[in-house]
Amino acid sequence: MAQSQPTLAVVGATGSVGTVMRELLSSRRNVWGEIRLIASARSAGKELPCRGEQLVVRELTADAFDGVDVAMFDVPDDVSRAWAPVAVERGVTVVDNSSAFRMDPDVPLVVPEVNQDELGRRPRGIVSNANCTTMAMIMAIAPLHREYGLRELVLASYQAVSGAGQIGVDTLHDQLTKVAGDRLLGSRPGNVRQAIGDDLGPFTAPLALNVVPWSGDLAADGWSSEELKLRNESRKILRLPDLKVSATCVRVPVVTGHSIAVHAVFGSELDAEGARQVLRNAPGVILVDDPEAGEYPMPIDAVGTDPSWVGRIRRAMDDPRALDLFITGDNMRKGAALNTVQIAELLAAEFAKSSS
Amino acid sequence: MAQSQPTLAVVGATGSVGTVMRELLSSRRNVWGEIRLIASARSAGKELPCRGEQLVVRELTADAFDGVDVAMFDVPDDVSRAWAPVAVERGVTVVDNSSAFRMDPDVPLVVPEVNQDELGRRPRGIVSNANCTTMAMIMAIAPLHREYGLRELVLASYQAVSGAGQIGVDTLHDQLTKVAGDRLLGSRPGNVRQAIGDDLGPFTAPLALNVVPWSGDLAADGWSSEELKLRNESRKILRLPDLKVSATCVRVPVVTGHSIAVHAVFGSELDAEGARQVLRNAPGVILVDDPEAGEYPMPIDAVGTDPSWVGRIRRAMDDPRALDLFITGDNMRKGAALNTVQIAELLAAEFAKSSS
Repeated sequence: MAQSQPTLAVVGATGSVGTVMRELLSSRRNVWGEIRLIASARSAGKELPCRGEQLVVRELTADAFDGVDVAMFDVPDDVSRAWAPVAVERGVTVVDNSSAFRMDPDVPLVVPEVNQDELGRRPRGIVSNANCTTMAMIMAIAPLHREYGLRELVLASYQAVSGAGQIGVDTLHDQLTKVAGDRLLGSRPGNVRQAIGDDLGPFTAPLALNVVPWSGDLAADGWSSEELKLRNESRKILRLPDLKVSATCVRVPVVTGHSIAVHAVFGSELDAEGARQVLRNAPGVILVDDPEAGEYPMPIDAVGTDPSWVGRIRRAMDDPRALDLFITGDNMRKGAALNTVQIAELLAAEFAKSSS
Repeated sequence: MAQSQPTLAVVGATGSVGTVMRELLSSRRNVWGEIRLIASARSAGKELPCRGEQLVVRELTADAFDGVDVAMFDVPDDVSRAWAPVAVERGVTVVDNSSAFRMDPDVPLVVPEVNQDELGRRPRGIVSNANCTTMAMIMAIAPLHREYGLRELVLASYQAVSGAGQIGVDTLHDQLTKVAGDRLLGSRPGNVRQAIGDDLGPFTAPLALNVVPWSGDLAADGWSSEELKLRNESRKILRLPDLKVSATCVRVPVVTGHSIAVHAVFGSELDAEGARQVLRNAPGVILVDDPEAGEYPMPIDAVGTDPSWVGRIRRAMDDPRALDLFITGDNMRKGAALNTVQIAELLAAEFAKSSS
């Protein structure tokens, strides 16, 4: 029986998403034979916990993929671009969490609850995982699209610092230590910048006591790469190549939990209660929509949980086909590690079928 | 000469907006004869600095308005509702910063740079000051409307805690002191709530390491009162009774500086550079739009300054008539005290004319 279970590699096992991947592998129903942890040469030889064992981290080499059936990659774009094809060459199916292959027409971009059927066609041997902000949003928007026919999205994000890795988290906590306790900080021009100094970590501006309307790199016409990901990935996942999308991506001083204010225009009229009913029945979604009771989606509640939290459902007052809502999801879990693990588990199930 | 200068009363002079009003009166060109500070009985007798003098605070009574020409009110809605008519009865023109009279058709809602002409018709003797979030946004949207003809706004706000008064600022700083330095906080479910405890101050949820998609009271159909203010006040100020507006208001852990992500649809086609040119020439607006140089509007830079900071100007990729942009304004200054002082100064100029 043990031999029939596929071998899984976790590439980038020491990173912050890799850490959540190992936690998930330790807490979910086990479908894996061997689990192999892979990272850069710097981390090779380290022992890390996974599924109740201490596993020795192997260096990322072509040989490290020998005998591997499925590999989950969480590494920078250029590392994925270089190494995913090497793994595929050795017979591995790669689930990649970078943006390197997401828009490749021969690479499916899969959210199991939304478009699992696309997993079957993967001519390059690679499956991509969506951007963390897209993921939180699409979980709630996809079921509404199936019911009402989506036409347009206007999005404003509230993105957590852990999206920039552990260095992002450390940077925010360092900055908070510098500003906490000084009651005048944030009330006078420039004094937050002065208190924080040049220690911006991976960000372009201080995050403590601030919001930063920038994430990613500069793309054409003033858009950030993060904003274009939201547009392009939503179109691909929902199979709506002409979907109208305008997004403004903003970083906020939150550790984990990306939130999105969504204005969604549909093809047919709807009402808020009908939309709530759709969301109550949607997999991977939790409806929290009772403002008088203080119930709306917030990062401090969504962190560490699997679903997208959705609330503040309102029909637009000036358009009976439009909804306004607020969504929060854990960017490390469904936004990154969880969706990757879910895809890998679907691949494991294929393996089980083909080997039985 | 001194006799010809009008007498000004500041009602709510000890509050956080009242404090900024006194600072502004101390730093702007002086147009006032006597300045009288008025507050609740609790604060009466206190001495406070204003325009280089120490002034004794008087209790809010009908007699306190004797001889006053113009009064700026920054007090709760119910206090304005009760006392503004009392002042008017004594011959005072009231500039009110509460929401009590804003939607009254006999009370002009004035932003001097936008609709100063409405100041002349004030049958109730009251002029209203707009909500702080509306104010930051309208400064940039009004000149664009004049050029391109506004049809629709989709808004998501990032509102600072000082909008809830000094207690809001103190609450955030207390919470930051509790969470700073603990690197695991914000990474695990519930642990921010645990660290902060029940000390929520004027808010419905913790603000440190969080964003809270709620501000104000519950109005009809799930909208918050703050969201409806943005819709109703924008329509009134821009004289566009049918303007389509959808807003989601969110509180963020920022001390001062409200930001708004705006998707604005116009009647005619436009391009980003044309919109930038309009904003460069707009009074009370500063254009900061060079993402590669790290230049975009942010609270830590806008705090303590007068204009609305506007940037991230992009033409929507799927609609040549739509713009996406990001705006930050100091909610205590233009969003509250400054606009009130500007209106009062326009009234002082009327007084000077009529008495010459």
